Amino acid sequence: MKTPGQPFSNYGQPSLQERGVVRWISANRGVPGNGVSWTPLHDLEGTITPSGLHFERHHNGVPQIPIDQHRLLIHGQVRRALTFSMGELARYPIRSDILFIECGGNSNAGWHQLPQQTRAGFMHGLASCSEWAGVPLSLLLDEAGVDASASWLIAEGADAAAIQVSLPLAKARRDCFVALYQNGERIRPENGYPLRLIVPGWEGVLSIKWLRRLEVAREPVMARNETARYTELQPSGKARMFTFVMDAKSLITSPSPGQRLDGKGVYEIRGLAWSGRGRIRSVEVSTDGGAHWAAAQLQQPVLPLAFTRFRTGWTWSGAPAVLKSRASDDSGYVQPERSALIAERGRHGYFHYNAIVSWQVDEDGEISHVYT
Amino acid sequence: MKTPGQPFSNYGQPSLQERGVVRWISANRGVPGNGVSWTPLHDLEGTITPSGLHFERHHNGVPQIPIDQHRLLIHGQVRRALTFSMGELARYPIRSDILFIECGGNSNAGWHQLPQQTRAGFMHGLASCSEWAGVPLSLLLDEAGVDASASWLIAEGADAAAIQVSLPLAKARRDCFVALYQNGERIRPENGYPLRLIVPGWEGVLSIKWLRRLEVAREPVMARNETARYTELQPSGKARMFTFVMDAKSLITSPSPGQRLDGKGVYEIRGLAWSGRGRIRSVEVSTDGGAHWAAAQLQQPVLPLAFTRFRTGWTWSGAPAVLKSRASDDSGYVQPERSALIAERGRHGYFHYNAIVSWQVDEDGEISHVYT
Repeated sequence: MKTPGQPFSNYGQPSLQERGVVRWISANRGVPGNGVSWTPLHDLEGTITPSGLHFERHHNGVPQIPIDQHRLLIHGQVRRALTFSMGELARYPIRSDILFIECGGNSNAGWHQLPQQTRAGFMHGLASCSEWAGVPLSLLLDEAGVDASASWLIAEGADAAAIQVSLPLAKARRDCFVALYQNGERIRPENGYPLRLIVPGWEGVLSIKWLRRLEVAREPVMARNETARYTELQPSGKARMFTFVMDAKSLITSPSPGQRLDGKGVYEIRGLAWSGRGRIRSVEVSTDGGAHWAAAQLQQPVLPLAFTRFRTGWTWSGAPAVLKSRASDDSGYVQPERSALIAERGRHGYFHYNAIVSWQVDEDGEISHVYT
Repeated sequence: MKTPGQPFSNYGQPSLQERGVVRWISANRGVPGNGVSWTPLHDLEGTITPSGLHFERHHNGVPQIPIDQHRLLIHGQVRRALTFSMGELARYPIRSDILFIECGGNSNAGWHQLPQQTRAGFMHGLASCSEWAGVPLSLLLDEAGVDASASWLIAEGADAAAIQVSLPLAKARRDCFVALYQNGERIRPENGYPLRLIVPGWEGVLSIKWLRRLEVAREPVMARNETARYTELQPSGKARMFTFVMDAKSLITSPSPGQRLDGKGVYEIRGLAWSGRGRIRSVEVSTDGGAHWAAAQLQQPVLPLAFTRFRTGWTWSGAPAVLKSRASDDSGYVQPERSALIAERGRHGYFHYNAIVSWQVDEDGEISHVYT
């Protein structure tokens, strides 16, 4: 501490010592720009995901969109079609909310026969939480004048995949908005710059990035992403479709696989819980594989449709142990054990895997993913 | 939208189109590493400040500290001195809170005879708001065993300036903590990596960056930063000292100088309010220079000792107008007009300037800073 340090910077970056704390990219080599990158939830604390670590799911890469040329079109079953520049949108009333976004396919390795061994965030980190700010859809829809016969809204992104999704107009009016800002600043390119539809608590695919078009319609568009994908064959032989809401889920981020307990003694078990139905009401933690449960502390304030941080003390005896967490939300929904989820949904699942996660601590303090 | 976009990235960055949204550096050329950089509050929305844009105040630059070698020492009037590695600290119970930090010298151009003409953030942006996570000081102090005769805590940073500050032990026990994380990830180097003392609601200088030492003491250290600086001569001839709490303040960030109204019509007035005493209770806005006031909407949830976003609609007639905002907090404190602040504090002020800010809109929609 005897020599002056580094100079000021216009825009700061993480320490080079933290260069291992990155999104893990799992892209499709055969299809450029198709894949995901995972938020390293096991390395993070609190509830806000740094924007640079917010998960990505792209179908055809990250488009570079000149903000001055970008427009939002609202059309279809409306009295008059409207077009907005980003500057025009910014004059409307804005709201800001801390909200999670979770991909419908997050945690889908849970459907595998054997427990996947990887870092917690690299199996469950297609979920991130930001403060999003933008214009309520209800204002824009009212200005366009929605026809009484319409009950769906079709949203389309400006990427080369031209992803389209359908959502009920009632949801769009209730709490959806078009976001211009993420965590205080303009949305990052990979998260939808300059405009993203935010559909709180529902499958991430609905929160269309690079939003260019909203069509008010009588029927859903039945695009590939809501028919061939984001649907699931159930034990009855029928397929689930439009399974919008993300059910309550929780995950112990510390200790978790890839970390190691440094001898017996006191530790804090820490994790995240969230629910697309509302607020997390409680998170229970078990350190004996589910035989006994105790309530963890929830970091206040507990916000609806946002990551909730839970923590609880634990004295490790040095013997093998299995750690689990179980979230409940204020709708009364309780996160299921894996066996219960499979009994209900069958073995053809790919989306909406939200079962209780089990981490086994062995005598050396090593942690692995187990099914129990 | 016919060609694939850019590939995935391990750690995202803002759009190059936003390269103008940066901290403004105001450094002392004669003293390397001494100065400030300002958060561009006029370009931001919501309440979270992106970590890369959190304000800086350095006395001798940003030290590069190997996290594995850094230690926190707690000593002085204690039963036993303690030393913690960052790994040892991380085993203690953690809490996370969204909190503002404001430099005691923020907005000090308000003491000038003429209103400074600059962007809102470049006069008032030595204030930023993050989710900080770390270990409560009360736990560490209890473990060290504080002597009953002690009533102060002296904190020291590991930068080349070796900044020292004193704060009452009662405050340290009440809500202070040593933070390892900011906005989810490890603290950025310029904000104190790997460890920062967080003193909620009090002068930013107390939230010591690169924290290396905490000394429990019977008296304050009376360092330069609490005697020659951060003190102020009052009209009575006596100096104010240990003026810890940051009083309630508010600022209209949009519209604000450097922005321009694009013709008469409807606008949303947006701004930030905060108080070191607790929660913001109300923000009133005037568009006629203070003759009439109306309550703005506060974005929920309103958190104590955190930025609160306020917004209100305004129809601009095209005639000259003066915009003001006035914050009140839940202690009953009301942000003063400039004349009242000067009447109370005199003309030797430099710190703790929190008077109502006035923006004048002229007929062309240009905005300037005025005293009224």
